[in-house]
Amino acid sequence: MSKSVLGNTDLDRMLKTKMPAIGIDLGGTKIMAAVINSEGIIGEPIKIPTPAGPENIINAFVEIIDKFKKEHLVAGVGIATPGIVNGNTGTVIGATNNIPGWAGTPVKKIMESKTLLPVHIENDANAAAYAEAHSKRLKNKTCVVALTIGTGIGGGILINGQLFHGANHGAGHCGHIRISFDNKRMCTCGLFDCYEAYASGTGLLATAKEMLTGVSAKQSPLAQDIKALKNADIFAAAKNDDLVAKKIINEWHRHLVMGMISIAHVLDPDCFVLSGGLCTFIDYELISEMLIDNTIPAIGDNLKIYKSELGNHAGIIGAAQLILDKLAKAS
Amino acid sequence: MSKSVLGNTDLDRMLKTKMPAIGIDLGGTKIMAAVINSEGIIGEPIKIPTPAGPENIINAFVEIIDKFKKEHLVAGVGIATPGIVNGNTGTVIGATNNIPGWAGTPVKKIMESKTLLPVHIENDANAAAYAEAHSKRLKNKTCVVALTIGTGIGGGILINGQLFHGANHGAGHCGHIRISFDNKRMCTCGLFDCYEAYASGTGLLATAKEMLTGVSAKQSPLAQDIKALKNADIFAAAKNDDLVAKKIINEWHRHLVMGMISIAHVLDPDCFVLSGGLCTFIDYELISEMLIDNTIPAIGDNLKIYKSELGNHAGIIGAAQLILDKLAKAS
Repeated sequence: MSKSVLGNTDLDRMLKTKMPAIGIDLGGTKIMAAVINSEGIIGEPIKIPTPAGPENIINAFVEIIDKFKKEHLVAGVGIATPGIVNGNTGTVIGATNNIPGWAGTPVKKIMESKTLLPVHIENDANAAAYAEAHSKRLKNKTCVVALTIGTGIGGGILINGQLFHGANHGAGHCGHIRISFDNKRMCTCGLFDCYEAYASGTGLLATAKEMLTGVSAKQSPLAQDIKALKNADIFAAAKNDDLVAKKIINEWHRHLVMGMISIAHVLDPDCFVLSGGLCTFIDYELISEMLIDNTIPAIGDNLKIYKSELGNHAGIIGAAQLILDKLAKAS
Repeated sequence: MSKSVLGNTDLDRMLKTKMPAIGIDLGGTKIMAAVINSEGIIGEPIKIPTPAGPENIINAFVEIIDKFKKEHLVAGVGIATPGIVNGNTGTVIGATNNIPGWAGTPVKKIMESKTLLPVHIENDANAAAYAEAHSKRLKNKTCVVALTIGTGIGGGILINGQLFHGANHGAGHCGHIRISFDNKRMCTCGLFDCYEAYASGTGLLATAKEMLTGVSAKQSPLAQDIKALKNADIFAAAKNDDLVAKKIINEWHRHLVMGMISIAHVLDPDCFVLSGGLCTFIDYELISEMLIDNTIPAIGDNLKIYKSELGNHAGIIGAAQLILDKLAKAS
């Protein structure tokens, strides 16, 4: 996989450190991809709908790579995917309900044989975490915890700049931290009282529906059609000074902090970086205060919460950086 | 600090790798110490009451070391202490309410100047975790989390055999994981619903008192004098098939698992090792089942819970191993 591009090893090495890689982010509904070097994205990212079935997904990857290869000399391909990934074998080993049939696919092996490029596979939350932690503002930190606040909650842990994968590729499943022992609310994973059952988009909506029980439409327009309620309605109402909506949002912020309190006491990180669809609706000053109030001073006093700088490009950037850094180490 | 013992550098190095170190474990009520090499404790450990005030503690350390030095050629001294420790400077930087005046003491600096031996200082839970994780059974694991279940709950995290200290020396404060968001019970630290407020000895007693409210002395002898109740009474009653005591113990086991669930999803460790005064009263089969039932399969299926092999010697062994390993690396 590391054959000389130009037949001259030194020149090859020099070129490779400057060469970009292709970053691909596979999602349940869309695939995003771009050519990326150490400075960032080159040109415009590609966005296509995720096709059905592993074979079609692999074909879509190959088409994207072929297209980019016509315009760029690339060093490799990084792929961010949902699910638990065995980074050593490059296989998706589990937990990808939103992409049926994907678990078990030896993605790295197939893609390397089809493209003749070195390929690295990483869990999507980890890839995004890698990108965030390697941004200028967070370089050289001891410990960065990245959380993706969307339909669910994903996480990635960086220790001295490297992703920590745990004993069985499962580290960073922060959405399943347990924030209550009362068996109050079941998570989509089947466990009770997971962090993401409260603090994700799904969790916020569940909290809103609970809190709106018994509220009249006169008190809050949100109560008019609870079945059809969406998170966007709650955010809009809160912006319009609807007191009930404001209380729901405040409770969501309280839930958001609960998982961070536990992570903070276990890892004593430098900071949290929050990304995902809901991260723009978070009051960062409020959760920072709440977090400090609920941690022992030695840990809380130095702890920061940042909003993602890379937004929904974090996955492709992290995937590309991972293969570039892997190649740089190997050379 | 690494001057030649015999004037010959090579011989010196050879001897040093075989030389034992002194391990000291400072507690709120007693100081334990022993001479330790890679095989374990040499001779009998010393146990003396903890004197009042930092100066007297330091003098006690020096006396212990002088006594051991008369019988052994030692390579260095490892000291395990309560509180947050800055391992770089060797200073206790905070949180040691049970040893008034101790926080702020530059232990390493003082001890090295008084003994002319290399000294390493480590938090006591971390030192114990280091010893457990370096035992034969757990060597070469990716991630070991050691929890001390006593009056409070302490923790230590080992990643690839090395202690993880976090950004500000605070990692492993697992007792302050938050296990409920309801502000139900205040912890001795002043925060609400900490893991140790439920799962420690203090927590168990609080749970028992809550559960015994409204229970008559006829239903359970434990209800006779709730104010004077001790954990030993509850364990004894449960052994005698007191149904109320059994329910209290079962609830304590449920609480014990709650913190582990969160740690498991964050770190995906190979195993937990439990030590501390209450670790002999734990039903390991029961909590293992509970833990697996409450974690996602990718993490829970491979997760083990072990009882400490080293008991209350873990602190002195870990402290001595830490200074020995540090000296081996430096040579």
